[in-house]
Amino acid sequence: MARIVVKFGGTSVADPARIENAADKVLSETKRGNQVVVVVSAMAGVTNQLVDYCQQIDPGCDAKEYDAVVASGEQITCGLMALALQKLGLESRSMTGWQVPIICNDQHGRSRIDDIPPEKLNDLLQNGVTPVVAGFQGVSKSGRISTLGRGGSDTTAVALAAAIKSDRCDIYTDVDGVYTTDPRLVPLAKKLDKVSYEEMLEMAALGAKVLHPRSVELAMAWNVPLQVLSSFNTGIGSDLPGTIIVGENDIVEKQIVNGITYTRNESKITLISVPDMPGVAASIFAPLGGAGINVDVIVQNVSPDGKTTDMTFTVPKIDSSKVKTLLENLDFLKSTEIRIANDIAKVSIIGIGMSSHTGVAQTMFTTLAENKINIQAITTSEIKVSVLIDEKFTELAVRSLHTAFGLDQQQAS
Amino acid sequence: MARIVVKFGGTSVADPARIENAADKVLSETKRGNQVVVVVSAMAGVTNQLVDYCQQIDPGCDAKEYDAVVASGEQITCGLMALALQKLGLESRSMTGWQVPIICNDQHGRSRIDDIPPEKLNDLLQNGVTPVVAGFQGVSKSGRISTLGRGGSDTTAVALAAAIKSDRCDIYTDVDGVYTTDPRLVPLAKKLDKVSYEEMLEMAALGAKVLHPRSVELAMAWNVPLQVLSSFNTGIGSDLPGTIIVGENDIVEKQIVNGITYTRNESKITLISVPDMPGVAASIFAPLGGAGINVDVIVQNVSPDGKTTDMTFTVPKIDSSKVKTLLENLDFLKSTEIRIANDIAKVSIIGIGMSSHTGVAQTMFTTLAENKINIQAITTSEIKVSVLIDEKFTELAVRSLHTAFGLDQQQAS
Repeated sequence: MARIVVKFGGTSVADPARIENAADKVLSETKRGNQVVVVVSAMAGVTNQLVDYCQQIDPGCDAKEYDAVVASGEQITCGLMALALQKLGLESRSMTGWQVPIICNDQHGRSRIDDIPPEKLNDLLQNGVTPVVAGFQGVSKSGRISTLGRGGSDTTAVALAAAIKSDRCDIYTDVDGVYTTDPRLVPLAKKLDKVSYEEMLEMAALGAKVLHPRSVELAMAWNVPLQVLSSFNTGIGSDLPGTIIVGENDIVEKQIVNGITYTRNESKITLISVPDMPGVAASIFAPLGGAGINVDVIVQNVSPDGKTTDMTFTVPKIDSSKVKTLLENLDFLKSTEIRIANDIAKVSIIGIGMSSHTGVAQTMFTTLAENKINIQAITTSEIKVSVLIDEKFTELAVRSLHTAFGLDQQQAS
Repeated sequence: MARIVVKFGGTSVADPARIENAADKVLSETKRGNQVVVVVSAMAGVTNQLVDYCQQIDPGCDAKEYDAVVASGEQITCGLMALALQKLGLESRSMTGWQVPIICNDQHGRSRIDDIPPEKLNDLLQNGVTPVVAGFQGVSKSGRISTLGRGGSDTTAVALAAAIKSDRCDIYTDVDGVYTTDPRLVPLAKKLDKVSYEEMLEMAALGAKVLHPRSVELAMAWNVPLQVLSSFNTGIGSDLPGTIIVGENDIVEKQIVNGITYTRNESKITLISVPDMPGVAASIFAPLGGAGINVDVIVQNVSPDGKTTDMTFTVPKIDSSKVKTLLENLDFLKSTEIRIANDIAKVSIIGIGMSSHTGVAQTMFTTLAENKINIQAITTSEIKVSVLIDEKFTELAVRSLHTAFGLDQQQAS
């Protein structure tokens, strides 16, 4: 007998019929003799509607009240899912964040989970009850409803899996697993059977919209095996496995490159002749962080004269003019030239096998050169190489790299 | 300084703009130096949508889960109302049933309030905060979300008013007060300045859809003055008083007849030759009650021979065939003839002055006779006379009685 946390995203519970379909998946798990805790998101569209109501009243509204309003979405789904499970003959009950309780800090709107006392859930499981927990929400120590921010239901599922010592956490979504790259861009993209947390983190952070990065981090920290699978498979083959996400040590045959990811709509900011002194990077990025601007790739070259250096970084394109204003207001950049290039894409290759193989980056650069794609900046980590390129080459770059690293699916003959 | 509970119904909070309009009313009260607790219903249509979701999954669904789903509606509104009040510069916070807490019994779906510890609300009020409480909901002793049944937000408002010793409870709705009869049926219907709890109870129970009877009962028990007024009056005259509902002793000039009410779509069941013995009425009505059928008027004539009697009662028309089946299954009614007349209306005159005046019923019967309306059954109480008539005469009966008892509004010249 295993213990499994099973999470259904918004499109998997978009209406009562889909909720009943999702309930069937839970029934299958219990029939295998497993204890199951279900976590649900809000029905697709509901959260956006609730956020819209709040913003109609006050675009900069109080996060505590925003949380009270928005958390209702998951409360609705968890009650409906419990009803669907009862209809299938399972004993089931819904649990909101305060009922579990999922104790969060006071950072309303983007709260973090402090603690999940497992006693109530354990009691229910031992009594044959299938609890259905509202994702995305918790309760603060002062008894206010809090939410975990967008994508938070994945985090709820993983945190619960850790709290009740679950053997696995299954994330049902509208795709049937993690792919080597975006199948809409590359029809030959291949579903991966297994990826490591580290690879998944790079993929999630770089734009593969399957799992929220926070949930992957948490799974890695608590060593909870994750599985991504589709809630829309029914009938023959509906038990097809998805993609398993586990620790690097649980992967025997490490792929050199396991995925190609991309993000579009970035702007590249280049600062020419920045004073090269301690603290300068912090002084540049502090005002951007303060304005809520998400800085991504940062490249700083070695200073040739020891006095000034050049620095390049990317921000979302919509923020680029705000960034320009913020930087122009910095006194110590008075004699620095600020160059902004919009319409930049970032393309990355990811693989835990990369660190033990040479020539991986070289293959990437050669492939891009053969396709006449100019590389504007490069960053690397242990398991990733990212390049900035002109946005119009995104598709060509991803496809040619996908082929070059042998990721193309075998065509059915 | 007064303390006031102010409740807004579903149409008064139907969208963010109306919520902001309602918030203006609250601001006016606080500007008068009053402490205000706000109670809100779900936005118009939301509760029906949530009930529909539950019934799509299971028409006879578990009341505990139904409650968890449906209570979300009021949670949404109370957060939005708190945001609207904050935007007007008031300190405000939302409170769900479990946060107040409003402690209810375990009768999910139609729970009753056991206790409202007033400490948290008192603290907030004394600190200048305007609490916004989700109507219609509470929490059971075992920590489950419960709802009070339809119309429950009025009950929440009155119970809160009693708990925090409020000076008044204002119920904002889509009408500007209690009328002598339905203004859609009788254009000359007149707004009442004051009615007694007893009259309001008769009117509410008999079909005036302004206030839920339970809330009136509770207001009477705790002697909470109620006011019904419109949330849609704005600008000049927006502070027009509605109808005040108070104890009989607070009404100096008692009207003989204060209101004419009606209900349509009743069926009249007549049992000819029922065995006249102790317990027979209980034996007839127990199975109907068990089937959830609401029996209204009951008339039993004196038994002329001491052996059998005739009995007449009304039920909602949609239940009449079910009633027939239930009655036919009763052994002791084997030799009783069961007659069913559909399309029956009940018309009632109501007034606390009635008990001290003679000839009131006679005026009613004469008026109906003059209009050639046949009376099929009569029941009376201290402050009410009801008759059953053919449904097609409803409008004629109500209008002619309204005139006969001098309730017609003076026409503006």
